[in-house]
Amino acid sequence: MKIYRYPTKETWADLVQRPVFEREEISGLISEIFNEVENNGDKALIAFNKKFDKAETKSISVPENEIDNAENELSNELKLAIQEAKENIYKFHVSQNTEVQKIETTKGVVCWRENRAVEKVGIYIPGGTAPLFSTVLMLAVPANIAGCKEIILCTPPDQNGAVNPAILYAAKVCGISKIFKTGGAQAIAAMALGTESIPKVYKIFGPGNQFVVAAKEYAQRFGVAIDMPAGPSEVLVIADEQAIPEFCAADLLSQAEHGSDSQVIFLTTDLKVFNETVGSVEQQIRDLPRNEMAGNALENSSFIVLNSLEDAIEFSNLYAPEHLILAIREFEKYIPYIQNAGSVFLGNYSCESAGDYASGTNHTLPTNAYAKNYSGVSLDSFVKKITFQYLSREGLQNLGKAIEVMAEAEGLFAHKNAVSIRLK
Amino acid sequence: MKIYRYPTKETWADLVQRPVFEREEISGLISEIFNEVENNGDKALIAFNKKFDKAETKSISVPENEIDNAENELSNELKLAIQEAKENIYKFHVSQNTEVQKIETTKGVVCWRENRAVEKVGIYIPGGTAPLFSTVLMLAVPANIAGCKEIILCTPPDQNGAVNPAILYAAKVCGISKIFKTGGAQAIAAMALGTESIPKVYKIFGPGNQFVVAAKEYAQRFGVAIDMPAGPSEVLVIADEQAIPEFCAADLLSQAEHGSDSQVIFLTTDLKVFNETVGSVEQQIRDLPRNEMAGNALENSSFIVLNSLEDAIEFSNLYAPEHLILAIREFEKYIPYIQNAGSVFLGNYSCESAGDYASGTNHTLPTNAYAKNYSGVSLDSFVKKITFQYLSREGLQNLGKAIEVMAEAEGLFAHKNAVSIRLK
Repeated sequence: MKIYRYPTKETWADLVQRPVFEREEISGLISEIFNEVENNGDKALIAFNKKFDKAETKSISVPENEIDNAENELSNELKLAIQEAKENIYKFHVSQNTEVQKIETTKGVVCWRENRAVEKVGIYIPGGTAPLFSTVLMLAVPANIAGCKEIILCTPPDQNGAVNPAILYAAKVCGISKIFKTGGAQAIAAMALGTESIPKVYKIFGPGNQFVVAAKEYAQRFGVAIDMPAGPSEVLVIADEQAIPEFCAADLLSQAEHGSDSQVIFLTTDLKVFNETVGSVEQQIRDLPRNEMAGNALENSSFIVLNSLEDAIEFSNLYAPEHLILAIREFEKYIPYIQNAGSVFLGNYSCESAGDYASGTNHTLPTNAYAKNYSGVSLDSFVKKITFQYLSREGLQNLGKAIEVMAEAEGLFAHKNAVSIRLK
Repeated sequence: MKIYRYPTKETWADLVQRPVFEREEISGLISEIFNEVENNGDKALIAFNKKFDKAETKSISVPENEIDNAENELSNELKLAIQEAKENIYKFHVSQNTEVQKIETTKGVVCWRENRAVEKVGIYIPGGTAPLFSTVLMLAVPANIAGCKEIILCTPPDQNGAVNPAILYAAKVCGISKIFKTGGAQAIAAMALGTESIPKVYKIFGPGNQFVVAAKEYAQRFGVAIDMPAGPSEVLVIADEQAIPEFCAADLLSQAEHGSDSQVIFLTTDLKVFNETVGSVEQQIRDLPRNEMAGNALENSSFIVLNSLEDAIEFSNLYAPEHLILAIREFEKYIPYIQNAGSVFLGNYSCESAGDYASGTNHTLPTNAYAKNYSGVSLDSFVKKITFQYLSREGLQNLGKAIEVMAEAEGLFAHKNAVSIRLK
């Protein structure tokens, strides 16, 4: 835990730097995996399951009865929670549908945009210690609203060759029936290139480890799009004197438990809240099952006292956090000044885990300062907006001269002629 | 010109393939240029101006008086045309602003999105034979509407060290005052890394040759975003029996003149229109100043007779053209079936050059089949949509159980605790 009291603004540029982790040089491995999947398809995926996931999988498609049976392995409580989360995610994302708005820019010249779904999308869900079935909802719900025709899901099998039932159930309630047992870079390769079982998709979504991230970058050279570049998860909490230290500490830890490379930043204007939050973090961490990870993450994390909330917002904009919690009384006053953030949580009861699971906002968000230039996943991520225009003869007459003059000035005479020939 | 009459659907997958051009292996050169710009800043840019553009440039900033004087070198006609285009582009893009819509997903849980501008954006405008001042409007107008605080423009100098006055004038009417004389990969490097004169930006927009395209891809590893991946320009025209062959030919040629690697596709259900369009292309091309380029582009282009308009739309969706012209009577009937396209032009008077310059739609569009997974540039390209959420105590009470159950099932106990501690 790094502690800074009233650091001068000159030092902020250093304080907002993300910790740099040594990454293995894996680009050679990624291209080998892509080659192997391209040449041997499903067979390669089955071999990789054995090699990387210690799993025997005769086929990589999850059979229908396995999907149906998953339901029996979950508690009613969990099934209800998944349903409730799904409904809220649906309500928020369906509201992102925009009506077609036709604009007559010049008399006789009408322009508009219409949404069309990305027809084929692939969702990657990591396996391992935390089965992220919530991410299934976050990606499949907007894909359904958009009208994506083909939604497929890849996730690695466990050592028994099975997929976590909560992942299967979440997929089922979202109407996904094409689920494949393959993980890591090979799953991304399969979705980018296609295999006998797995259809090639146009866009790949979902989180993953450094191999998945590198494979998603690599996949783009095959014409596939990805949701966004990825980095470790992070939260920045701003607290004033009315903040409740136990709540702040709980939010900071809920980010820290994601992984050793997570980062949490705590900013406050109040020394009492500062000291009590630090104390509460140290106390709460003891009871966490993942306290080793959280402890490692805290080592890279900063707890900072600043002079004013204005300073705190300025610092936050410079850092551009994935999650920003405003545990301050007058949060409404500061909203207009928030420039760079993925998702913002307002007041003492808007904990980050609400947005992670069930409030309705998407939890696939820009990390690593990408909140400066990327939005989180939304309905927009699953559609293209196509522009349309209709010019009547009169419309072209009104606009023709301007087009001709500009085309000629750019030296593009065929562009000019396309107008002239129509107005002759 | 490749001619196909009623090709069977089995052959379509081959027919929609883009021609493959041998690209030089330039990744080594790109990384050298980035290193040079990183280490020597402006000095490197001045040296590259000499080396690549044969231009002596003492400073790379375009001085204010040079921007002001540009106006005097343009005809009134051109200045008026630029103003008219700018106004239409403004009208269409300002309509893309969405109102904030607050959604109460559960009682006491309110979620919404707000737009925030990408604070720093860079626009690249190629030099060379065609001074693309229209692209300045297409990128600077939405950047202004979005509220981008810093908008900079890079464009290569000519052999006299000057920048084309139409580019300077278009920039000026859009309020851009930071213009720099640097082109090619080095301009992209400068915007991605920053130099003494050129500020580092968060997102880079604009077209360019293969060096610019490769540099934009490379720039992403420094955290910068780009508008979209790029390829040669293209148009697909669908014509029925009422189409006017001279108009179709003019549209096909206006795309072909962009460059030898452009591609045009003509689809029709009518043999007479087919033959006359082919004849008209051969006739009109003779008078074009850029007829050599257009001729080369035509060699890679397909003229195809199909059985029905339904087939033509299906073929077009498979090809996913940057520009799609529907020179058909009942275009409205077919709009819902258009799945993949950048921008669509409806009827006999909506020529592509209208959208290229002045109708108001953006001309920065996805090529090379990227219309399957990318939208063209719009106001959205210059903003991030940040999600906000406010939960009252009651809201968290209503949602708390679902969050706790899901967090526990994902093994994330600190996430659960952030709720439990608040509801204790």
